[in-house]
Amino acid sequence: MAEAAAQDLLLAAAFVSDAQYNRNIPFKTSPEAVRLYHLYNHWMMRIATYFFIFLNLSLALFEEPAVYPLPFLATSVLEVLCLLVFLGRLTHFAKVTLHNVFWKDTKNICIMVAILLSLTDLAIYGVLRMYDVRSIRWSRIVRPIFLINFAESRQIRRAFRSIRNTLPEITYVFLLFMFSLLMFSLMALKLFGERNLQTAEGLPYFRNYLEIVFDLYVLVTTANSPDVMMPAFDFSSWYTLFFIAFVIINTYIFMSLFLAVVYNNYKKHLKNEIRKLAYMKRRKMIEAFNLLKEEEGEQFVVREARWKQLVKLVAPDTSSSHRELLLCISDDEQKGFVDKKSFVQLADLLNIQVVTLRVRRHPLARWVPALYGSAPSQLLRRVVRHRAFVWTYDAIILINAIFIALDEESPYISYAEWVFLALYIIEILLKVYTYEPREFFGKTQFWNWFDTLIIFAALTATILNATLKSTLKYNSQQILDIVFILRVLRLIRIVDSIQRFQVIMNTLINIVPTMLTFGGLTLVVYCVFAIIGMELFHGKIQYFPANSNAPHALECGNPALKDSLFARGKYCKNNFNNFASSFIVLMELTVVNQWHDILSGPAKLYFIAFHIVMVIIIVNIFVSFILEAFFVEYSLEKSEVETAIERKIQELGMGVQEDELQYEQLLDNMESAEHELEGEGGTKPQSKGLVFKIASKRYRTVDALLQRMFEAEIPLEDEGLSFEEILNLSPTSAVPRSPSSESTA
Amino acid sequence: MAEAAAQDLLLAAAFVSDAQYNRNIPFKTSPEAVRLYHLYNHWMMRIATYFFIFLNLSLALFEEPAVYPLPFLATSVLEVLCLLVFLGRLTHFAKVTLHNVFWKDTKNICIMVAILLSLTDLAIYGVLRMYDVRSIRWSRIVRPIFLINFAESRQIRRAFRSIRNTLPEITYVFLLFMFSLLMFSLMALKLFGERNLQTAEGLPYFRNYLEIVFDLYVLVTTANSPDVMMPAFDFSSWYTLFFIAFVIINTYIFMSLFLAVVYNNYKKHLKNEIRKLAYMKRRKMIEAFNLLKEEEGEQFVVREARWKQLVKLVAPDTSSSHRELLLCISDDEQKGFVDKKSFVQLADLLNIQVVTLRVRRHPLARWVPALYGSAPSQLLRRVVRHRAFVWTYDAIILINAIFIALDEESPYISYAEWVFLALYIIEILLKVYTYEPREFFGKTQFWNWFDTLIIFAALTATILNATLKSTLKYNSQQILDIVFILRVLRLIRIVDSIQRFQVIMNTLINIVPTMLTFGGLTLVVYCVFAIIGMELFHGKIQYFPANSNAPHALECGNPALKDSLFARGKYCKNNFNNFASSFIVLMELTVVNQWHDILSGPAKLYFIAFHIVMVIIIVNIFVSFILEAFFVEYSLEKSEVETAIERKIQELGMGVQEDELQYEQLLDNMESAEHELEGEGGTKPQSKGLVFKIASKRYRTVDALLQRMFEAEIPLEDEGLSFEEILNLSPTSAVPRSPSSESTA
Repeated sequence: MAEAAAQDLLLAAAFVSDAQYNRNIPFKTSPEAVRLYHLYNHWMMRIATYFFIFLNLSLALFEEPAVYPLPFLATSVLEVLCLLVFLGRLTHFAKVTLHNVFWKDTKNICIMVAILLSLTDLAIYGVLRMYDVRSIRWSRIVRPIFLINFAESRQIRRAFRSIRNTLPEITYVFLLFMFSLLMFSLMALKLFGERNLQTAEGLPYFRNYLEIVFDLYVLVTTANSPDVMMPAFDFSSWYTLFFIAFVIINTYIFMSLFLAVVYNNYKKHLKNEIRKLAYMKRRKMIEAFNLLKEEEGEQFVVREARWKQLVKLVAPDTSSSHRELLLCISDDEQKGFVDKKSFVQLADLLNIQVVTLRVRRHPLARWVPALYGSAPSQLLRRVVRHRAFVWTYDAIILINAIFIALDEESPYISYAEWVFLALYIIEILLKVYTYEPREFFGKTQFWNWFDTLIIFAALTATILNATLKSTLKYNSQQILDIVFILRVLRLIRIVDSIQRFQVIMNTLINIVPTMLTFGGLTLVVYCVFAIIGMELFHGKIQYFPANSNAPHALECGNPALKDSLFARGKYCKNNFNNFASSFIVLMELTVVNQWHDILSGPAKLYFIAFHIVMVIIIVNIFVSFILEAFFVEYSLEKSEVETAIERKIQELGMGVQEDELQYEQLLDNMESAEHELEGEGGTKPQSKGLVFKIASKRYRTVDALLQRMFEAEIPLEDEGLSFEEILNLSPTSAVPRSPSSESTA
Repeated sequence: MAEAAAQDLLLAAAFVSDAQYNRNIPFKTSPEAVRLYHLYNHWMMRIATYFFIFLNLSLALFEEPAVYPLPFLATSVLEVLCLLVFLGRLTHFAKVTLHNVFWKDTKNICIMVAILLSLTDLAIYGVLRMYDVRSIRWSRIVRPIFLINFAESRQIRRAFRSIRNTLPEITYVFLLFMFSLLMFSLMALKLFGERNLQTAEGLPYFRNYLEIVFDLYVLVTTANSPDVMMPAFDFSSWYTLFFIAFVIINTYIFMSLFLAVVYNNYKKHLKNEIRKLAYMKRRKMIEAFNLLKEEEGEQFVVREARWKQLVKLVAPDTSSSHRELLLCISDDEQKGFVDKKSFVQLADLLNIQVVTLRVRRHPLARWVPALYGSAPSQLLRRVVRHRAFVWTYDAIILINAIFIALDEESPYISYAEWVFLALYIIEILLKVYTYEPREFFGKTQFWNWFDTLIIFAALTATILNATLKSTLKYNSQQILDIVFILRVLRLIRIVDSIQRFQVIMNTLINIVPTMLTFGGLTLVVYCVFAIIGMELFHGKIQYFPANSNAPHALECGNPALKDSLFARGKYCKNNFNNFASSFIVLMELTVVNQWHDILSGPAKLYFIAFHIVMVIIIVNIFVSFILEAFFVEYSLEKSEVETAIERKIQELGMGVQEDELQYEQLLDNMESAEHELEGEGGTKPQSKGLVFKIASKRYRTVDALLQRMFEAEIPLEDEGLSFEEILNLSPTSAVPRSPSSESTA
């Protein structure tokens, strides 16, 4: 009984720190519920949920106005299917959660309301359609709610919470910014309003107050600089002082201020969340300890047998040697029990990605030892491991880059392509021959995987293309495009051979997972704005191919656009006629430039709203996130965060810290370790032919790093706050009141 | 002898913390040298130096190509004069510095070389000119060196040092960014190069590799979005994916990365400088103590008489009551001597801006006590102090804003202007009647000064304008413009009545002084680029007024610009024909938008160079600075940094912390204190009718705040490092190795 409860707590603690699950909520603990919970969190179930969320979102592609039209019946059946899946998922969740908790959680209520709204709207729309009455499918705006509220997208919810917390402060800055904008507009009206100046298009310049406000708002985004200044500048050079003051105050200072507010809140919030997680984990581990403890001398401890049983229950897929290692660390002096301090570390221990490197011989060494061990083979392997081998291939990549840039027409150059492909394949084969293949394609060998995939994709595509060309005399442009891109991507590898670039690249690779969160966030905002945009601006602008004879083809099918910058810039394809082009237009608006041209007319408010939400808030959060990720990376460069556990693994002589060793050295090291073991005949009982490698810094997430940093700050005695206190920790209370860390915050 | 030396050290310590002087350098200590040193630092001398630096820089306005042409003889005489002044200043500096130190300092060598170069170039140019040979005045680029290297512009030098330190890291990121740019360009060449696509202007699209690189570089700055994408988008919507990937990686990630690197270095550097200052001050104070100390019981102390003498020597302009206060704080228990700990604080004590608020009666209360104390007068004063009085004037300001926005033509509205002016003047008079005038116009009453100046300037200008109009029937546009601007500026005051806005406004006001540094930095970069730009592009583009009949007037006098976007946008005035328009063009380039249009042709490299220096480095430093200023401000909102000194002043009951009290309350408080004193007949010997007010947070600089924060971290026992060690503190060693502050750094 005690073990089951302890297991549950330990599981919860392990999950908390896993940063994947949100086990803040007390779950049911019956075996049935636990089984259901495991099923709920099974990767297949989660992938299926994501699939239906994205299917539901992508329905907008097939509904009117459609990119690929499907009959209404088909899309509505799909939508009902999605909604049923969501309902099923929610029911599943209800089964594993305590009832009062389930019904208190706003996100569950949210999902239910969204399902209900969607069904109602679908029914109304269907009925009206039968009577040929066209109505608006307003419930489509609700669809992103599923993406936000399903438990799997915890990161997105966190981002939304962070935005919500930032809003009050952003609002104050925004009001001040608007005040400044209105003041400057008033000055502009007074200074230029009665000068009868004209813009480059011959329109009246700065006559109407609201137009001035809009023009100056656009100037803040720098999109209409210097055009908006030119008429005043032509009139008198002194008037540029007005615009310089405007740009300094509004573009530089206020926009930085927005970034400062967003960043400050982002960080405060991040710290608070991580603090909560750390407290929660500590708390749960202590509870588990209290359930399992027995008295031993003067202290309470957990005995070895019980401890092992627990670990087997909690982490059934760890190898027994891994468990041995964990015990070695927890029961340092081999006393046969684990004390409180070490027990509390267990959740962290389980979370450390310890890769068991079986010191394996190369398969060829086992199969054909004579050949593999022969002098030429050894020489070859030594050559491949030599630095010069890397340099040679770096040189080859550079030459290849030149060949790619050269004209493709000459037959010699297309032959050269085959030569390069062959060289790259030889490189991979040589490396696999030299290094142990399972190690070479290890989970953490990002560049090896990258290389191999790119080269084999290129090989396949090139062969396919050549076959098509020679047999069907047909040149597939799509395949060619892919071949081109793959060829260029091959060149990226050169970056990894320079140490300084590696640091930057590692951080960039690290932030990819979190960037997906921003992808989700952007998707939500884009979906909402695209659906609104399609309702408002659908069909206003038409795109005609270059040689079309349609009336108003040059004015994008809209006579009002005659002679506009929009038509002159050939922007006709930037329209809201379907979901896909709406997304592209919104992307252009995110980049900001020319947005006043892209949407002229009554769309101004729509665009200001989009600018505030997307550029001022979300892009700034994105920038904050990147800034933070690099600050963490830079600070780690100096002070390596090394926990007691890692040190212990090192002490036991079973650790290989990947960062400290080049990949080649690592493998050399392994081989020598192998010889040593053979020679000594296993004098180290713990190692049993294993080397533990701590998953390298390169593959740690920013979250995990921050969490570890914070944990170092909590003293062990601090059993901390109760669950309720932890859950209600506010960002302000969470920040420790130390002036030095404040100042740097 | 000991006193003189101690005084010198104390002076030095006070100066160090003053952040105005750079007394890192051992100075001569003879009385003659000290006199010379004081002369050197006299404000007149410093203003004169600045005057000549700016005169020297502004010579570019009068030299060929000139805004206001002056004969060569005049400008060269002025230049020689400036150079002589610089030489004089340098000689003066040499007189107060130790010889070996003077000659080791690169900035002195720099100035000498610059003077020599300028003179040589001037001579060569003059001689060649006599023989009518035109040569380039290349030494003009050297002129900003004087701005950078004169000791007064320490802030600018610090900024340059910070840039120099950032360069290596920036370079790595930049190389990686260039690599990414080249890769994408290669892909673009392969994907679009052979499609025969055309841009909106009918030019070939993405054919030439170098042009692609340039176009994509421009896209990173977002200046040609979405134009650069449109031909590919028209061809196939899928190609937008290429541009989306490009923008995410290069515009969002790499540009944020630049900001991260710059910010990280900026902060590291700032911390290091402040750490150095704090150590230096501590060290000098301890040295001074050791010179003056006498044995008292078991400890060394400085006796009261000696201490007073020292303070009088060091800070001759403090009032005796201020000195009494300082002694009260230093000699807490009135033992007749000051111990080491308190002595070390003296430099800080002297630097705290303690404003001695003499509890003064209103002058009218002294002159006409019967009238001022009468019931109607008291009622009036109570009305003025009431919150409703502020609200009434806020309402008046809003109504005024509406009137300003309305048309000026109607006579009623121009009468209304007089009414508003009268109302504002009445407000100021009422306030002066109610509050003590010297207090109302105190040094720290920013808004009172602002109000009064704006209103009286507006009054003067309006009267001047009305007089000109009625007597000479002449409407001066300049005066009218000023009146308009002043009228609008009056409205700003409304912001100060909302508490939340005040925090933001205070920070904005706080950063103004440091922004001047960036002004200096920008000036240096602009000068260099303007001078190069004038040599390269002078006369390439001509500006013609709107109705000119000159040939190629529409093409800015350059047939090559026919049908270009440059000519179509009427950008002709954006040229490098003189120093002033060069500055305006560079400003436009700093804002970035349209820069590819503003400078087409061979100017690409010039612009990429400018973009890297100005936008990637300097604007990012500026943004970093604003971010830091707001982070400090936000962190102070929560944890008020209160030193022992301030607490002491509070304890003694002589402090009034302005922030805690509304201005009105403060004055009320003062009056009640006055009554109390009268009643009690001076039972508190220290107060002597004085209240000390600690200069409010609002007027502290970011530097001072950071310094104070850091000082709290140094323990008193830490006599710290030697001078050499302090001077050689590197940014990395300076950062304390605490993981928590690292993580937040």
